[in-house]
Amino acid sequence: MADFAPDDSFDSIALASGGLDSTTVLAIAISRGFRPLPLTFRYGQNHSIETQQVGWIARSLDLPPPLILDLPFDHIGGSALLGSSPIPDEPQQGASQRQEIPTTYVPARNLVFLSLAVAAAEARSVRDIWIGVNALDYSGYPDCRPEFLEAFLLAAHRGTREGSSQSDQPWWRLQSPLVEMSKAQIIRTATELGVDLSLTLSCYAPDAEGQACGRCDSCGLRRRGFEEAAIPDPTRYQNHG
Amino acid sequence: MADFAPDDSFDSIALASGGLDSTTVLAIAISRGFRPLPLTFRYGQNHSIETQQVGWIARSLDLPPPLILDLPFDHIGGSALLGSSPIPDEPQQGASQRQEIPTTYVPARNLVFLSLAVAAAEARSVRDIWIGVNALDYSGYPDCRPEFLEAFLLAAHRGTREGSSQSDQPWWRLQSPLVEMSKAQIIRTATELGVDLSLTLSCYAPDAEGQACGRCDSCGLRRRGFEEAAIPDPTRYQNHG
Repeated sequence: MADFAPDDSFDSIALASGGLDSTTVLAIAISRGFRPLPLTFRYGQNHSIETQQVGWIARSLDLPPPLILDLPFDHIGGSALLGSSPIPDEPQQGASQRQEIPTTYVPARNLVFLSLAVAAAEARSVRDIWIGVNALDYSGYPDCRPEFLEAFLLAAHRGTREGSSQSDQPWWRLQSPLVEMSKAQIIRTATELGVDLSLTLSCYAPDAEGQACGRCDSCGLRRRGFEEAAIPDPTRYQNHG
Repeated sequence: MADFAPDDSFDSIALASGGLDSTTVLAIAISRGFRPLPLTFRYGQNHSIETQQVGWIARSLDLPPPLILDLPFDHIGGSALLGSSPIPDEPQQGASQRQEIPTTYVPARNLVFLSLAVAAAEARSVRDIWIGVNALDYSGYPDCRPEFLEAFLLAAHRGTREGSSQSDQPWWRLQSPLVEMSKAQIIRTATELGVDLSLTLSCYAPDAEGQACGRCDSCGLRRRGFEEAAIPDPTRYQNHG
């Protein structure tokens, strides 16, 4: 096991993508007296600038440097976010308005991310895992729904040291404070907590400087969120000329 | 998504470690008319000869070459199987005889392995996942128990494309044919199916030539299994002088 320096202390683990949602979760965790270790994955996503961004965000929130784990999703395949397939251009609607799952869906991503978060948490003896899933203004991914989180919690409980007891009262605490929030509410919360949202990146297809495309599903949800919250949008968008 | 050559066709995915149990599962899958893709993980385990072994085993069973995924368990930490901590020398007893979880436990390993297997299966549109867990003669890991598999199945269902339907009837099929077998029964089954058990490696601390230590928990379980099955043990043990 690695050594952890005292100034890098933490009491929980937070999945952090550098986006609006997970950054707001970091700030909420802090506001509730926690000091989460940001956990981020490098997995051959088109937008690997994400991992850099998480480092800047962690510093801006006075959190320990993120734990960055490499994941072989490029060998697993199956998503427009990974291969050379183009990211859909047209902003799509929230799942409340439609049924189908977008091509940007990465197979079982939150299942894999949460499993690794549980492994890292177990190895570090922390119990709380923060995740920024959001079932209201989201992209229609099945692994963002509360019923998934609930089932995962039981699997994680039974599949780890703590769950070898007979009780099915989950030992792990899955903290998902955004789950019932609209994008506008998330933006308002982040703003109230003093998060520098210009550091966050939600776009599926940013350029090398981290400028958002303004066109993908995720950019659309974010843009409408700022409009609805009546908060100026600090996002740096690419100039499409 | 990668291209799959026609002669590498498969209809299911099987977690394969190069050990006795998962190799027997491959043979059982074949005997039931399946052609599984072996999936193996390279995760900084002390015994990385495992991944080589899986390739030899796949060839001996006329299966496609294994999909090998790198996993950052060395950065996750928390197990004697990963770091520089010594592997416990004394053969330990099966879980039926004791409660504590051994130091060779890797945090949430099967949770992580199965999550990635589901991701790979979803990306490849196959539905059956084979796993060699065994809750009888096992090392006391919580993630080998049927109640874990059952909970995982529901989490996987709800966290993937197929589970976004309203029904909770799991779409995935988790095939764990060894779950109620003793080590001796597994060895008898493998022998009946013509598996070359000399290709398999169960040891936690093999040498560079793939010779087993003969002393660790896993070697102990295996050795007793051969004795009980009254089948000659083809394992190549290190000469401890």
